[in-house]
Amino acid sequence: MLIPGFARLLAQEQPPIQAALERAVARLPAPVREVAGYALLTGGKRLRPLLTLTAARLFGCERADLYDLAAAPEMIHVASLLHDDVLDAADTRRGRRAAHQVFGVIPCLLAGDALLAEASHRVARFGDPELVLCVSDAMLRTVAGEAHEIARQGSLSHGLDEYLSIIEGKTGWLLRASCRLGALFAGAGPRDVDALSSYGLNLGMAFQIVDDALDFADEAETGKPTGGDLREGKLTPPLLFHMNALPDAERSRFAEAFAHGRFSPAEVADISRRIRDRGFDRAARDMADASLDKAAACLEGLPDRPERDILRQALSFVRDRRA
Amino acid sequence: MLIPGFARLLAQEQPPIQAALERAVARLPAPVREVAGYALLTGGKRLRPLLTLTAARLFGCERADLYDLAAAPEMIHVASLLHDDVLDAADTRRGRRAAHQVFGVIPCLLAGDALLAEASHRVARFGDPELVLCVSDAMLRTVAGEAHEIARQGSLSHGLDEYLSIIEGKTGWLLRASCRLGALFAGAGPRDVDALSSYGLNLGMAFQIVDDALDFADEAETGKPTGGDLREGKLTPPLLFHMNALPDAERSRFAEAFAHGRFSPAEVADISRRIRDRGFDRAARDMADASLDKAAACLEGLPDRPERDILRQALSFVRDRRA
Repeated sequence: MLIPGFARLLAQEQPPIQAALERAVARLPAPVREVAGYALLTGGKRLRPLLTLTAARLFGCERADLYDLAAAPEMIHVASLLHDDVLDAADTRRGRRAAHQVFGVIPCLLAGDALLAEASHRVARFGDPELVLCVSDAMLRTVAGEAHEIARQGSLSHGLDEYLSIIEGKTGWLLRASCRLGALFAGAGPRDVDALSSYGLNLGMAFQIVDDALDFADEAETGKPTGGDLREGKLTPPLLFHMNALPDAERSRFAEAFAHGRFSPAEVADISRRIRDRGFDRAARDMADASLDKAAACLEGLPDRPERDILRQALSFVRDRRA
Repeated sequence: MLIPGFARLLAQEQPPIQAALERAVARLPAPVREVAGYALLTGGKRLRPLLTLTAARLFGCERADLYDLAAAPEMIHVASLLHDDVLDAADTRRGRRAAHQVFGVIPCLLAGDALLAEASHRVARFGDPELVLCVSDAMLRTVAGEAHEIARQGSLSHGLDEYLSIIEGKTGWLLRASCRLGALFAGAGPRDVDALSSYGLNLGMAFQIVDDALDFADEAETGKPTGGDLREGKLTPPLLFHMNALPDAERSRFAEAFAHGRFSPAEVADISRRIRDRGFDRAARDMADASLDKAAACLEGLPDRPERDILRQALSFVRDRRA
């Protein structure tokens, strides 16, 4: 359910973003170039670069090298996907075989490291330490969120607050950085930089909440296997709602299987269907509205330019996406 | 066989370096702090921080926050050890159980990522983009060297040139960065910065060559299992000399076992002993002299201060070390 302006921009900007990503891959050390290219150059909505571009243009910045800056958050994102895939032993990513299935674990680990280093280097080349701090902050917070999530894997004893803290780290901070980089690069004032940063953080949290709801949608619709979070013991809102609705007897069986990742494919399919039938995925999506409202409020004081409308449309894009 | 001045400095600087590393660990995200602390706060000669300190002092810099800068290369080094251990499945590191044996693979991967991010962040906080470029360059080259080494694992078809290119990446560039950071931080002129960078690169290559020779020394002397490179299919100079000295019939059997990592413990012990008996480890150490001579030449034009003597003594330290 794309909104026209945002959809047009998404489509329009794919080629120059892709070109910037190709330039980035070309700069990587030869032995990791193929793996990094496989992971970075195919698929993906390029939401992060698009946010950097739009944030910078909101303040009138039209520098041609903006694309090279905008590539950095996407590189960090893909580096974390490469490392996550190693961690999760996921078989598919963005509808294709996961890179570690094609190239092996070790090349993926190193390609991820190289992407992180080149992202830092790329940002440092612009000569503004604020940009580097923004990016390394995001890297740290992303790792913190991932480590927090892993520490809670298989646990059912934490609640929504801790879930929100996890996703703020693992997803929010990099979308925050995507927006913040653009605003800093354009020379926006501190208040505007902070407003856009907060917009990005909240957009990112909403994005992840919707993502976690989509985890229980039909694979035919999303292109991703249904119920991955259930198999991996990640307590997301739909699962929390599901668990709370279970009779006590069933709940302890559920907790046991969840803790040890022991659901059969049939059980995963069954639980996913029950989550959809009872509207728990929809209820989870509704949770995203709080973050989206906060993000929308952040836009209020920003310049009244077309880019602000694009950023507003991005909120609807996140809320309504089906894949 | 420590040289007095260098030995004294090594001992003297351990506590303030340790304190800086502890401050760094305290800044890491809580979920990775324990793993990162285990890997960062114990063992290690702290050669990299010491080089940063000495390089800066050579130009009269005595800023107290120098220790926080000097911590960065050590953090990158330990991050690469954490990721390497995951790659190599090594059981011990610095004489203790490898971190991934204690904490598992995933926490080590994330702790490595966090150390890399905090190292970037730490350097960026000093506000000089040159420092960040120096560090991210080193990260990229280190990864490139590691990926190159892995691409050649089990191969006997490459020679010393390629070996030197691998170790320049995997070890040389971070020692280069350790020196360069100090010189840049102290405001040294471009020629001096480059001279110290080249000193560090060559010192690092010599360090690795000696390390690879020590791989065939007695475990009782070094505290590391003998012949690790043989088991892992890494073609280092002692192995190259050994292979070239084998009769044709034995050589193909050796190549077969090397390619597939199929040496029995008895074979590893036997080959290591033969390497020592025939002096191939000593011959490999002699190879380090070329790099040490280059490094020494780089010091010639630098200020004639006590720190230059320390840097000269570091060359003897690397040449003569037994563990």
